[in-house]
Amino acid sequence: MPKTAAVLVIGNEILTGKIQDLNVAFIARELFALGVSLRRVIVCPDEVELIARDLNALRAAHDFVFTTGGVGPTHDDVTIAAVALAFGRRVVRDETMAAMLRAHYAERVSDDHLRMADVPEDATLLSTPDFPWPTVNLENVFVFPGVPELVRMKFPLLHDRLRDGAGFTTRAVFTLHDEADIATLLETVVAAHPTVAVGSYPQWKNPRCRTKLTFDAKDVAELDAAVAQFVAGIAPEKLVNGE
Amino acid sequence: MPKTAAVLVIGNEILTGKIQDLNVAFIARELFALGVSLRRVIVCPDEVELIARDLNALRAAHDFVFTTGGVGPTHDDVTIAAVALAFGRRVVRDETMAAMLRAHYAERVSDDHLRMADVPEDATLLSTPDFPWPTVNLENVFVFPGVPELVRMKFPLLHDRLRDGAGFTTRAVFTLHDEADIATLLETVVAAHPTVAVGSYPQWKNPRCRTKLTFDAKDVAELDAAVAQFVAGIAPEKLVNGE
Repeated sequence: MPKTAAVLVIGNEILTGKIQDLNVAFIARELFALGVSLRRVIVCPDEVELIARDLNALRAAHDFVFTTGGVGPTHDDVTIAAVALAFGRRVVRDETMAAMLRAHYAERVSDDHLRMADVPEDATLLSTPDFPWPTVNLENVFVFPGVPELVRMKFPLLHDRLRDGAGFTTRAVFTLHDEADIATLLETVVAAHPTVAVGSYPQWKNPRCRTKLTFDAKDVAELDAAVAQFVAGIAPEKLVNGE
Repeated sequence: MPKTAAVLVIGNEILTGKIQDLNVAFIARELFALGVSLRRVIVCPDEVELIARDLNALRAAHDFVFTTGGVGPTHDDVTIAAVALAFGRRVVRDETMAAMLRAHYAERVSDDHLRMADVPEDATLLSTPDFPWPTVNLENVFVFPGVPELVRMKFPLLHDRLRDGAGFTTRAVFTLHDEADIATLLETVVAAHPTVAVGSYPQWKNPRCRTKLTFDAKDVAELDAAVAQFVAGIAPEKLVNGE
């Protein structure tokens, strides 16, 4: 079985529909390429006790957990306090991060600025020379900001820690058949290739195809065998380039 | 307290990053306008036992639960079976829906087509003359497809069932201040207006502003009082039109 992961999205802005989350899709694609199976996503409000409860459930059940959002200096930035609560640790000020903030804000620096240097006690702070502002890590939990551009910059620094053997590969097949027309064939293919995950998606209003099939697996030979079995069961004129 | 809601997104395609979910943001905006508080979103795989477990936890804790995805005739469409399991009911074929499928597919109709007429026993089937294909409803649970266009068409049919008094109203204020510069002011505003939800969001790479503040409430007078208190605490030259 591949390693497993979960994402905990901390964000009233998602739950009120002000912001379209983009981090889950990005992290999902990254994990897929790294061979890690994303099994669960939770979006919860900016509330310390709720976040801590969810985090403890997720970290007990998955190899990796990523939080997004809720880091910063304002009243609604409660992720660090929640992570500390989940792990039963105090929040302490990291002097290296505080020094970076003092250098950046110079004489303007205030205690509110320095709050951004607060971390759970004994957290691991992951940084590189190119990206000195650290990612907070406790055991299997990694704390990311909510800003998608920052997540895209910071996540690749974890690739080597996360990679689990071969990445997943996906193949897509497009057909003019309705889903129901191929349901029995799909069941045969799924039964014959238990390590291949097969998805079937109706293409609403796509003039070029009716159903998109996806085949995912780590083992490319097994993947291609499943695709070949499916394709052999479809009349050639029903196969199309649907995108 | 406003009524509460949760969304259960059923979708391997979301967890593998193949599809950007758009339904949560849409449902979130709809609920916000209806005065219902979306408190929780879970994305889970296409697995009957996991879906049933999540659904039972969500429906016990919220006034309304919406599922998206996993309805259809293929092996990965397991939502109906999962909802039936969660409620301890059998899956039965609805003859009205079966008749619609027979009329649509005519002599091509197969048992795989007719599977789309399977519903949990004693489910309520919500339809209108303009939209005869029903939305499956059991107690406080409403079952939606995954196709965003269909969710957008079907969700408004529920507005009258969901509305909880006044809708939420939101105001946005943009400032050239960094978040930390206004953190203390925000705490004062939040403490003075406990029914107003205040969010603070750094505007990464937005050349026109540094921080966006949002204020949400049902009571518009209270909302405007919170905005006025915040604005009065900011130097006028630091307020901008940020969008």
